[in-house]
Amino acid sequence: MGAPIAANLAAAGYKLRVYNRTASKAEPLVAKGAHRAERAGDVAEPGGIVVSMLADDASVRALVTGDDALAARLLPDGIHISMTTVSPAVTSELADYHASRGSVLVAAPVFGRPDAAQAKRLRICVSGPADAKARVKPILEAMGQEIFDFGEDAGAANVVKLAGNFMIAAAMEAMGEAVTLIRKSGVDPAAALDMLGKTIFAAPVYQIYGPAIAHGQYSPAGFRLPLGLKDIELVLQTALAADTPMPTASLLRNRFVSAIAKGRSELDWSAIALGAADDAGLE
Amino acid sequence: MGAPIAANLAAAGYKLRVYNRTASKAEPLVAKGAHRAERAGDVAEPGGIVVSMLADDASVRALVTGDDALAARLLPDGIHISMTTVSPAVTSELADYHASRGSVLVAAPVFGRPDAAQAKRLRICVSGPADAKARVKPILEAMGQEIFDFGEDAGAANVVKLAGNFMIAAAMEAMGEAVTLIRKSGVDPAAALDMLGKTIFAAPVYQIYGPAIAHGQYSPAGFRLPLGLKDIELVLQTALAADTPMPTASLLRNRFVSAIAKGRSELDWSAIALGAADDAGLE
Amino acid sequence: MGAPIAANLAAAGYKLRVYNRTASKAEPLVAKGAHRAERAGDVAEPGGIVVSMLADDASVRALVTGDDALAARLLPDGIHISMTTVSPAVTSELADYHASRGSVLVAAPVFGRPDAAQAKRLRICVSGPADAKARVKPILEAMGQEIFDFGEDAGAANVVKLAGNFMIAAAMEAMGEAVTLIRKSGVDPAAALDMLGKTIFAAPVYQIYGPAIAHGQYSPAGFRLPLGLKDIELVLQTALAADTPMPTASLLRNRFVSAIAKGRSELDWSAIALGAADDAGLE
Amino acid sequence: MGAPIAANLAAAGYKLRVYNRTASKAEPLVAKGAHRAERAGDVAEPGGIVVSMLADDASVRALVTGDDALAARLLPDGIHISMTTVSPAVTSELADYHASRGSVLVAAPVFGRPDAAQAKRLRICVSGPADAKARVKPILEAMGQEIFDFGEDAGAANVVKLAGNFMIAAAMEAMGEAVTLIRKSGVDPAAALDMLGKTIFAAPVYQIYGPAIAHGQYSPAGFRLPLGLKDIELVLQTALAADTPMPTASLLRNRFVSAIAKGRSELDWSAIALGAADDAGLE
Repeated sequence: MGAPIAANLAAAGYKLRVYNRTASKAEPLVAKGAHRAERAGDVAEPGGIVVSMLADDASVRALVTGDDALAARLLPDGIHISMTTVSPAVTSELADYHASRGSVLVAAPVFGRPDAAQAKRLRICVSGPADAKARVKPILEAMGQEIFDFGEDAGAANVVKLAGNFMIAAAMEAMGEAVTLIRKSGVDPAAALDMLGKTIFAAPVYQIYGPAIAHGQYSPAGFRLPLGLKDIELVLQTALAADTPMPTASLLRNRFVSAIAKGRSELDWSAIALGAADDAGLE
Repeated sequence: MGAPIAANLAAAGYKLRVYNRTASKAEPLVAKGAHRAERAGDVAEPGGIVVSMLADDASVRALVTGDDALAARLLPDGIHISMTTVSPAVTSELADYHASRGSVLVAAPVFGRPDAAQAKRLRICVSGPADAKARVKPILEAMGQEIFDFGEDAGAANVVKLAGNFMIAAAMEAMGEAVTLIRKSGVDPAAALDMLGKTIFAAPVYQIYGPAIAHGQYSPAGFRLPLGLKDIELVLQTALAADTPMPTASLLRNRFVSAIAKGRSELDWSAIALGAADDAGLE
Repeated sequence: MGAPIAANLAAAGYKLRVYNRTASKAEPLVAKGAHRAERAGDVAEPGGIVVSMLADDASVRALVTGDDALAARLLPDGIHISMTTVSPAVTSELADYHASRGSVLVAAPVFGRPDAAQAKRLRICVSGPADAKARVKPILEAMGQEIFDFGEDAGAANVVKLAGNFMIAAAMEAMGEAVTLIRKSGVDPAAALDMLGKTIFAAPVYQIYGPAIAHGQYSPAGFRLPLGLKDIELVLQTALAADTPMPTASLLRNRFVSAIAKGRSELDWSAIALGAADDAGLE
Repeated sequence: MGAPIAANLAAAGYKLRVYNRTASKAEPLVAKGAHRAERAGDVAEPGGIVVSMLADDASVRALVTGDDALAARLLPDGIHISMTTVSPAVTSELADYHASRGSVLVAAPVFGRPDAAQAKRLRICVSGPADAKARVKPILEAMGQEIFDFGEDAGAANVVKLAGNFMIAAAMEAMGEAVTLIRKSGVDPAAALDMLGKTIFAAPVYQIYGPAIAHGQYSPAGFRLPLGLKDIELVLQTALAADTPMPTASLLRNRFVSAIAKGRSELDWSAIALGAADDAGLE
């Protein structure tokens, strides 16, 4: 995800310092004039703005608080735009860490897959201090199609992001069960999902995943299945912290765990829909 | 649902004989020139076409096979367009009953609420013999926005209709859990659902039910909660007949049963979303 | 089940008229002096006592109300001891039918498999009018080890019977999940279940099914898997009538349906425990 | 739990050094001749044997590896008998930590509540190196009724302990659903659970919790509800590490989370059974 976002920033005229653990991934950006940083922390400068898009809670925490501590290098008044889908709790913890050192964290998780990032069609959820959000607004506008502001609490944007990913996975499970019912009843599931995706479910989630599930096409993966489990675990942790039972999220967790146990880790996360087919003795 | 559909047929120039158990409901149609039938069976004539929109399996079976038997009155070559959401098994049984007497059943369940029926925006799923479907096509076009053909097997259209209603209820449950998580995390659920309904979930199901669930507005009912349970029971019966476990449908069934046990039968079926809020100790 | 029960009645000195759809099954009893009835209804005589042990709701209803109507042949004051596991609703309906004709139904479902019936170790749950229960008490004592009275409402004994079968199936599912967890954690599940069955779970249900599930031995079937589904469906119907959601029962239903879809209908009902193993990618 | 266990060791003639965070809790033991340690680590001496019974993963880890590090004080050849219910993963991690410093961990989680500890009726599951288990055997025999050995892998005993606690909670949930069904069907749940607890479920789990659930008596707590959630979370973590979906455990987790959300944290863990009653609109 980082590469197309950075490319859009470069195209908008921003001068970039870039870093990726796998140096070769930064090559195309360097070829277009970006400066390559030797270490992650080197992308930061006092008062500057850093954009991060990483793998998980641990990697964001390491970036902010580790040896090469981003938080320390941004002060005074630098801003860290954290775009990784992480837990609201970790987001708040890192926002506090930044604040205690004189820099600011703006959470900015996105909806959209790499092709959407490339086409500047990302939807960006933001939360954090109002003045920092105002300052980074042009940068976010250079990356995405629309910005949705969920207030000053740093964790808020990730609550919404996790809720959205949960709803996507719930829709995939529902499609998986529906497709299995339709197929075992002797009706064409592709025609049925096509109809639904054109009418009452005429939205990207159903139009992207409906045909994939109806035809059983889960490869190549747009979003790998274990990443889906990671997000559902974040949902359940956040729900636990808020004393909130979520039975559909529990069901999804079991579908992801089962898919991994069955060796489907290389497939797209929509392959959790195979669980319903397995249960019904298909294939 | 029957009244606006009949009104659209009348407006398209069809001469109607109409029947409703509650005679007064037929008044507006009679005022516009429709003939009032004394008994349900009287709407039929040999070789004619009858449209029925009833409450459940039992009422359709009674219409077709009862004392006043529609099947017998349509022969030879009359057509019964059955628009009620019923089980595929009952649809097939009644199609066979018609066939054994020389008439034809075309299943034509619809997606859309009464306001959509009035605006001729119904989506109609059809299944049955090809020549009968061809003959009734102008009639269906006078009622709805689009027709989707699922083949010759009479039960097919209702399989798809039930799968669709299942997917709607699954989306409502997912929204209910998401809204509870968001609220208990201190974020505004209406803003979150609004964002999702404008982006990755930009479809009627989410745009209609998302705000209702975020704001807890379940009255007046567009589709009463016990009718939702009826449909989920049909889904589970159909799934049982096809040896298909559907864990999300089981969860939905429990939500509907619980809502009824708690006295919510007069609310809209989207009020199953209150179950997640109850579990989390809200209100 | 009927044969060992009848044998115990004969051994206790009762003179029997016996009927089984498969005439040869009655042979051993006839050899010991029982009179063979030509038709089911012929076992009844005015004021007599009939014991029935059948397959399901439909067969009991047919016996009581059918052409050969038991209810009519028992009057006045005959008693029908109905031992089949059926729904409380059907039990009440048939008790009313008997009452309207002058005979009496006593519901007497049992816990225990055929070997327990043979050994007179059945536990019998009864419900129905007090005087009728008093009159049949010696007969029930000749069949079982202990009698538990649940009152005058005819359906009560079957509520308890269904609740008990539900709890057995729930215990089997829990053992299935536990065994899978233990095995996948590299520990011996047979040793673990053996310990639990000797200590906190030192009861027949765990001692019978624990080793079977730990060793994966589901054949020969003591109680065939589709019969388990039948009982869970009765539980869910009864729960629906009482506005009672039962999420564990829903889970069990899905396990039974899945097992049947996977071709396990000839196995013992404890084979639902394979579902957890399948989900975890075992074998 | 620690106090009655220590009292039994003292009664068996062992000379004890004891420590509890709340010093007064050690008073009765000191009165009987035990030596009071100032800090937790002070109970250990080189080559000695330490018994710990703590709250959770974190407290055991702190004891073993913290400032006051038990592991370091036991070497060479001391043994740490760890009786807390913790995750198998943490047990293995701490066993390795001990081994790397020259001491040994024997895992010895128990089944039984404080009254069972007092009566020396605990059932003890052990795992760890064979010679260490042999050396501590007399100590364990002085505390409990029976010892069950699950092999050399340190984590094994806790896998079995967690599986057992999971099965207890699953039985409580099943009883909760059964009691609700029985009550809403107009039958006496106490009579029904009494019958089941005397027959096919004649085991402590059902005899202890059955009447409590039938009568709705959840206070005083034998094992507080949040501790139950802690154990189910350990089950689910262990299952996740072993790629094992456990739908019943997921359901239990939601029941515990809901009970806490509803303010039931002071009740016994069997109060999760109230969830089924709530869902059915009781009380």
